[in-house]
Amino acid sequence: MSISSRSMASKTQVGFVGLGNMGSPMAKNLLKHGYPVIATDVFPESCKELQELGAQILDSPAEVADKADRIITMLPSSPNVIEVYTGPNGILKKVKKGSLLIDSSTIDPAVSKEMALAAEKMGAVFMDAPVSGGVGAASSGKLTFMVGGVEEEFTAAKELLSCMGANVVYCGQVGTGQAAKICNNMLLAIGMIGTAETMNLGIRLGLDPKLLTKILNMSSGRCWSSDTYNPVPGVMEGVPSANNYQGGFGTTLMAKDLGLAQNTATNTKTPILLGSLAHQIFRMMCARGYAGKDFSSVFQFLREEEGQ
Amino acid sequence: MSISSRSMASKTQVGFVGLGNMGSPMAKNLLKHGYPVIATDVFPESCKELQELGAQILDSPAEVADKADRIITMLPSSPNVIEVYTGPNGILKKVKKGSLLIDSSTIDPAVSKEMALAAEKMGAVFMDAPVSGGVGAASSGKLTFMVGGVEEEFTAAKELLSCMGANVVYCGQVGTGQAAKICNNMLLAIGMIGTAETMNLGIRLGLDPKLLTKILNMSSGRCWSSDTYNPVPGVMEGVPSANNYQGGFGTTLMAKDLGLAQNTATNTKTPILLGSLAHQIFRMMCARGYAGKDFSSVFQFLREEEGQ
Amino acid sequence: MSISSRSMASKTQVGFVGLGNMGSPMAKNLLKHGYPVIATDVFPESCKELQELGAQILDSPAEVADKADRIITMLPSSPNVIEVYTGPNGILKKVKKGSLLIDSSTIDPAVSKEMALAAEKMGAVFMDAPVSGGVGAASSGKLTFMVGGVEEEFTAAKELLSCMGANVVYCGQVGTGQAAKICNNMLLAIGMIGTAETMNLGIRLGLDPKLLTKILNMSSGRCWSSDTYNPVPGVMEGVPSANNYQGGFGTTLMAKDLGLAQNTATNTKTPILLGSLAHQIFRMMCARGYAGKDFSSVFQFLREEEGQ
Amino acid sequence: MSISSRSMASKTQVGFVGLGNMGSPMAKNLLKHGYPVIATDVFPESCKELQELGAQILDSPAEVADKADRIITMLPSSPNVIEVYTGPNGILKKVKKGSLLIDSSTIDPAVSKEMALAAEKMGAVFMDAPVSGGVGAASSGKLTFMVGGVEEEFTAAKELLSCMGANVVYCGQVGTGQAAKICNNMLLAIGMIGTAETMNLGIRLGLDPKLLTKILNMSSGRCWSSDTYNPVPGVMEGVPSANNYQGGFGTTLMAKDLGLAQNTATNTKTPILLGSLAHQIFRMMCARGYAGKDFSSVFQFLREEEGQ
Repeated sequence: MSISSRSMASKTQVGFVGLGNMGSPMAKNLLKHGYPVIATDVFPESCKELQELGAQILDSPAEVADKADRIITMLPSSPNVIEVYTGPNGILKKVKKGSLLIDSSTIDPAVSKEMALAAEKMGAVFMDAPVSGGVGAASSGKLTFMVGGVEEEFTAAKELLSCMGANVVYCGQVGTGQAAKICNNMLLAIGMIGTAETMNLGIRLGLDPKLLTKILNMSSGRCWSSDTYNPVPGVMEGVPSANNYQGGFGTTLMAKDLGLAQNTATNTKTPILLGSLAHQIFRMMCARGYAGKDFSSVFQFLREEEGQ
Repeated sequence: MSISSRSMASKTQVGFVGLGNMGSPMAKNLLKHGYPVIATDVFPESCKELQELGAQILDSPAEVADKADRIITMLPSSPNVIEVYTGPNGILKKVKKGSLLIDSSTIDPAVSKEMALAAEKMGAVFMDAPVSGGVGAASSGKLTFMVGGVEEEFTAAKELLSCMGANVVYCGQVGTGQAAKICNNMLLAIGMIGTAETMNLGIRLGLDPKLLTKILNMSSGRCWSSDTYNPVPGVMEGVPSANNYQGGFGTTLMAKDLGLAQNTATNTKTPILLGSLAHQIFRMMCARGYAGKDFSSVFQFLREEEGQ
Repeated sequence: MSISSRSMASKTQVGFVGLGNMGSPMAKNLLKHGYPVIATDVFPESCKELQELGAQILDSPAEVADKADRIITMLPSSPNVIEVYTGPNGILKKVKKGSLLIDSSTIDPAVSKEMALAAEKMGAVFMDAPVSGGVGAASSGKLTFMVGGVEEEFTAAKELLSCMGANVVYCGQVGTGQAAKICNNMLLAIGMIGTAETMNLGIRLGLDPKLLTKILNMSSGRCWSSDTYNPVPGVMEGVPSANNYQGGFGTTLMAKDLGLAQNTATNTKTPILLGSLAHQIFRMMCARGYAGKDFSSVFQFLREEEGQ
Repeated sequence: MSISSRSMASKTQVGFVGLGNMGSPMAKNLLKHGYPVIATDVFPESCKELQELGAQILDSPAEVADKADRIITMLPSSPNVIEVYTGPNGILKKVKKGSLLIDSSTIDPAVSKEMALAAEKMGAVFMDAPVSGGVGAASSGKLTFMVGGVEEEFTAAKELLSCMGANVVYCGQVGTGQAAKICNNMLLAIGMIGTAETMNLGIRLGLDPKLLTKILNMSSGRCWSSDTYNPVPGVMEGVPSANNYQGGFGTTLMAKDLGLAQNTATNTKTPILLGSLAHQIFRMMCARGYAGKDFSSVFQFLREEEGQ
């Protein structure tokens, strides 16, 4: 039976499609754990480093699918995923029966479900497994994977994903990995803007920002954005607000994830009043010079400028 | 010198104005700690229980001020505070020089500053010391006090407040106690609505609420409303959502505090996009049958009803 | 040449797909103007009345396309349009070269563009022509059509559309008809909620609603919702607010159109702060018993209830 | 009886307090209509021009009240009004019994009510009469006055106000003039931001801005901001958007009026979701360089910048 044959075939080759900022260090971690990697990317130069480390580079997702029966994809957005799976040189053109296809991109869960259906028609299994944690966590193998798909395949997926992440959480049917990721990031966005507004108001009312942070963190206002990633310069060290909002999680990426939250909410007719407004705020920021800064720069965005 | 004379006068009588749901248990805790209490309230029946416990009951704040040089006030809103301090039978009509006046009401910090100025003209010291924690914490003496006012008087204030609270935090000049309270509750409101929206969206997308809570709490979406006071029935025990949103912190009270946040933000020209929207949401809830429920019932409010 | 042959073929048969509340009276108006109509609908009972009036009823869009080279479609939402055009029994399965396909559904302009591309591959021309005006305007032939598509075909389209509408406006390339419709309805939604909030606030501040309406309408607050479709009962006659919010434009339909606005804004990265909040408000209303009422019932929704 | 004696005393002297950008041309129009004017302002230089035109200048509001029994005040905000009426050199210090006091400032209606009570205690009558229309309308005598106060006094007030305005509307009890002004400007703000968002979205979706404006104005999206004061450069002539948003109604002033709307809504527990968000948006704009531009510059604020 195909499933057990895959499980027994551990340490046989693994396919990897998408060698960008995140995909590249993830694929390296597979190599480190002893898996032969067969990879491809639309930009040939992205493949060089991995090739030097011993990976085999092929020309298209279809060719990867022809050689490997376990494939991981890590792509920027929904259209790329659709192309890589169902396009003319896509994985499903040559996928083997019983293959395990794991998509770690952050995309609309409706697209994940479509891909799963398309894979099923070819006798393959598709799982969504988006990550939390940025490039640093990808390099150190400390990502968190939120996994959606058939429960019987979770063990097989976890075997691979645990080479690249510290936490691998099973979330439910296909698309729930994406759902969990989107939900977390929506609440994160709300908490961050809320913290920025609150700190700004407190400072205006005469409170010292460090003291206010201490009070919030011992009270019911406490949240990750106040106690771990405070957006006010001078309150914490080692966070983007201490480094002019360089590094971290870019405003553009947050706006993209909130766009997914907005779409899924619209499709499921779910009211998200704060989530929707948070989306619009990060969208405005992207248009006003904050696109490349860490999303905690919303504190700077809201703060009144001198001389006004 | 008045300050030291007061400090030395420890365990002499303490005045208390406002014996409502919060004030009454607070005054009892002063009695328990051995302070003779001289109290008053506009509703005579509110005074009975305290009288039976040994407190002396007088007819007006002015009479209390005539007998005690340390007075605590605990009142519903700004107009009451103005009346109790500066009205025709108010404290300042008979306040002794050097008296310490501590207001634990949650009011507009601008009013606290006015009261402090008025007290100063009479040679008295006014401090704002609003509390966090509800009736339960008031009874068990576990309140948190956020104190604003002259720093030299903080020790004297803390002597009394620590009979009624577990934490007494100095926040800065007059009004900063209110500011800290208002800021915390604004962020709390945002976090709660954010959590409710997120949980609702996640459930609609097929996630189990307990699992989603677990994921949020190990990730960057974590906040007090997700990990300590979850608004979704069935996720946690011992919180209002487990008890049909009875008890806890009423939606009306949250709307009141957000009204204060809104006013201070308007006065200081501070943009509070999410804070302001949160205010409007709790305001709508008050009008639609949620006034008396715990504020975490926003989850119920947002959730689509059957048959729609 | 196909285009001119069509133009000359005036009063030859016209296809019609989708005989719902809107499509049915539209098709009748084509019959009235002397066009033989060949129609179909997924619900056979929808076809009876038209059949009695002389229309020919066929089993599928494909069969309609086999017989008529000018086809109008009027469907509830994007998936229906995709099915009717590109499904296994869809129009494009049997469309004749040079056919003119006009879609009057209100859908995502991105879908209109896809359909236009698919039609072009088959040698046919697709135009989007969503309407404003409800069932009444459809019956009396007073609809407004907003038309997107190749400009050279606009005259041919107008010939048919002017049988069913009083205004036929050319908007630009394919999808701009949808864009115009979506934009108008977003601004309408904002104006209606704004009017409802304003009237409610004014009444609370002691103003007579008729007087306030008069003042707004002679001032800069004037808008269609204040001067033509006032949401406050008793201010105007002949509008839904005068009839317990029966009839008119249902909250569900407005929520649907705002969902389209939200999607197009997300896709084009356009910040719509008020538009997005308006969407969420109508979404909440749908969940709270207002789904079937006219959208001006937002006044009732916002108004505080007795006894709260 | 004092009222009739005032009425008969027409063309006797009229007091005027506050000779700023608005007050100065208003007082000139009183002079033009043959009323002797007795005026004062905190800035002596503001009085020069009026003095040259024949007005008598005094040192304080109290002195004006000592000489004139009809007084008009035009001041920037609530604290100024309180000072001018109830301050140590205020009108009420020397007001004559039966005097008519008309305040044309835009302030919190609660303050208008306080002033009316204070005036009543001195036997005088206070009315609120805020204006719509800017400096241009003040110069040409085309202002609109919205008047609140005792109805029997409206005729007397109108006699004076009609020298300075084209419309004088009686709104109801004291404070309703302010209420009408605040309500109109709140709806105006919502309509303007809505129009800006809609035009921006439409342009992004490929619509020509002039065409979109035409469509909105013949449809249900029509509002004063779309048909009279369009915020998109190039659509209309003679409006601030045609002149780099110079002139017109400054963003700061709109933010101030929305602050009043916010306060009255908070005090009356009225939910204003869009009004409140509009307030925050103009507040942000003030902080980001738009303070001095016309409020229609929100179109520019929302529009995505090049290179982002």
